[in-house]
Amino acid sequence: MKTLEGIGEDELIARLVELVPTGIKDEGPGDDCAVVDDGGEDLVLLKTDALVEGVHFIRESDSLKVGWKAVARVVSDFAAMGGFPERFLVTLALPGSISLEWVENFYRGMGTCFERYGAVLVGGETCRVPSGSAAVISLAATGRVERGSVVMRSGGNVGDAIWVTGELGGSLAGKHLDFTPRLEQARWLVEHFKPTAMMDLSDGVARDLPRLAIASSCGFQLDQAAIPLSENCDVKQALQDGEDFELLFTLPEVHGLEDEWQQKFPELKLTKIGILVEKGAGDSLAGGWDHFG
Amino acid sequence: MKTLEGIGEDELIARLVELVPTGIKDEGPGDDCAVVDDGGEDLVLLKTDALVEGVHFIRESDSLKVGWKAVARVVSDFAAMGGFPERFLVTLALPGSISLEWVENFYRGMGTCFERYGAVLVGGETCRVPSGSAAVISLAATGRVERGSVVMRSGGNVGDAIWVTGELGGSLAGKHLDFTPRLEQARWLVEHFKPTAMMDLSDGVARDLPRLAIASSCGFQLDQAAIPLSENCDVKQALQDGEDFELLFTLPEVHGLEDEWQQKFPELKLTKIGILVEKGAGDSLAGGWDHFG
Repeated sequence: MKTLEGIGEDELIARLVELVPTGIKDEGPGDDCAVVDDGGEDLVLLKTDALVEGVHFIRESDSLKVGWKAVARVVSDFAAMGGFPERFLVTLALPGSISLEWVENFYRGMGTCFERYGAVLVGGETCRVPSGSAAVISLAATGRVERGSVVMRSGGNVGDAIWVTGELGGSLAGKHLDFTPRLEQARWLVEHFKPTAMMDLSDGVARDLPRLAIASSCGFQLDQAAIPLSENCDVKQALQDGEDFELLFTLPEVHGLEDEWQQKFPELKLTKIGILVEKGAGDSLAGGWDHFG
Repeated sequence: MKTLEGIGEDELIARLVELVPTGIKDEGPGDDCAVVDDGGEDLVLLKTDALVEGVHFIRESDSLKVGWKAVARVVSDFAAMGGFPERFLVTLALPGSISLEWVENFYRGMGTCFERYGAVLVGGETCRVPSGSAAVISLAATGRVERGSVVMRSGGNVGDAIWVTGELGGSLAGKHLDFTPRLEQARWLVEHFKPTAMMDLSDGVARDLPRLAIASSCGFQLDQAAIPLSENCDVKQALQDGEDFELLFTLPEVHGLEDEWQQKFPELKLTKIGILVEKGAGDSLAGGWDHFG
């Protein structure tokens, strides 16, 4: 019997989407949100995202921060499309042994993030999992993006510079529960220097940059010496830790981006880490990162 | 330490919604879907619904039917608001030991239901739960309802007759995996005999009718002898088994409903089971169903 253990998530998803009618219009299944054209002034963004106990948090995690993280991860996905979140639904599948205080603080943490980014909770449900099962928290959200502002992963072109915000690595040391989604920065970027491709760094540059390059039918050259490192992190950690939730985007060489960025966001780094090249050229997509594996 | 074991879901939800900004416009938190006014021609409906292994299905369940059920439950919720579903996202939190065939058949089952009711899958994710944990399947969906067609639970009035579709009871004998959501019937009802209040029967008349009555600030008188029974079911099963996914709705006494219904849906029963009365009168809401408890 073939089980899920023997198959990667990307292959699994590719097999499964063949089995159902899909309404994916503008985006590949790998993009940060589903993009829906309802004929309105803006495009509609839809997103679902799950946190699993023992994988994304532990019972001992401060649930105020877990609540913040649950919402902030989704805000980061909307930002990565150039859009913004509007309405959330939350599903809590919890063992009966979890404390009421844990759940209330989880809600308070979500609430802080909703208020910070102008979103609201409109529904959801709470159900029980059998004793001994991991808690599963699933958020679903709707958002919007102006038609002229939407950015996919697939729009990068040969010659575009590759940029990242902030500093990378160190998520396991605590940053993964306490990060700031780059909504304001992404909105500023799409208004002033519209990126050709953009995504948020959830799995680390080592996994996410190849995804962006593949979606854009390009290769990439990475300047490892340029990678902005979080305190006490080396390049390997910066490339692989994941859960940075910084923006990764591409742009043709433009004048003024760095100066204007520094004026607008003086406390957040913006770093050019490489360039998109012809597909098949540049650093190897197939095995280039295996030595970090 | 107070745990979730010591608190009912209704009380839990009531406490939690105080802790976050909510955008619930037209509906109480108890309605079948969240209703959102985006200023468009129609109202937007949002819904999330979870199935837990060991609670809503077992590993040995035919996953074609589990996939159908997962979607059909949500279709039933949209129908109960007078609306229809459009787009789904699915989150599968699965142990690695689950078979690929199980997951593929789950998708095929969802696909059959999507096609039957004109909906599509636009996204989602698959993630792992630790070994030994229950699988959790969470669906999120968007839909629409014309402004003149939306029906809440709260619109019932004293004197309205209480109707149910189909026959009740027997879900555990297999019906719960193999039911037909009453989308067509609900759409016909809102067009021809707009119900004052409506919901789908997910927890049984014994729990759901009091909810509708409370939301409508009414009491109710139930004609137990009139309850339409599924084959081999008694009144107690019909009231308590739950997962009937039939429509429960209220209407002032109107002429022609039963005749027109029978012409339009000759194979599906429509039964008047009672009447809404003054709040505090009629069958007791507080303890009336305890003898079935």
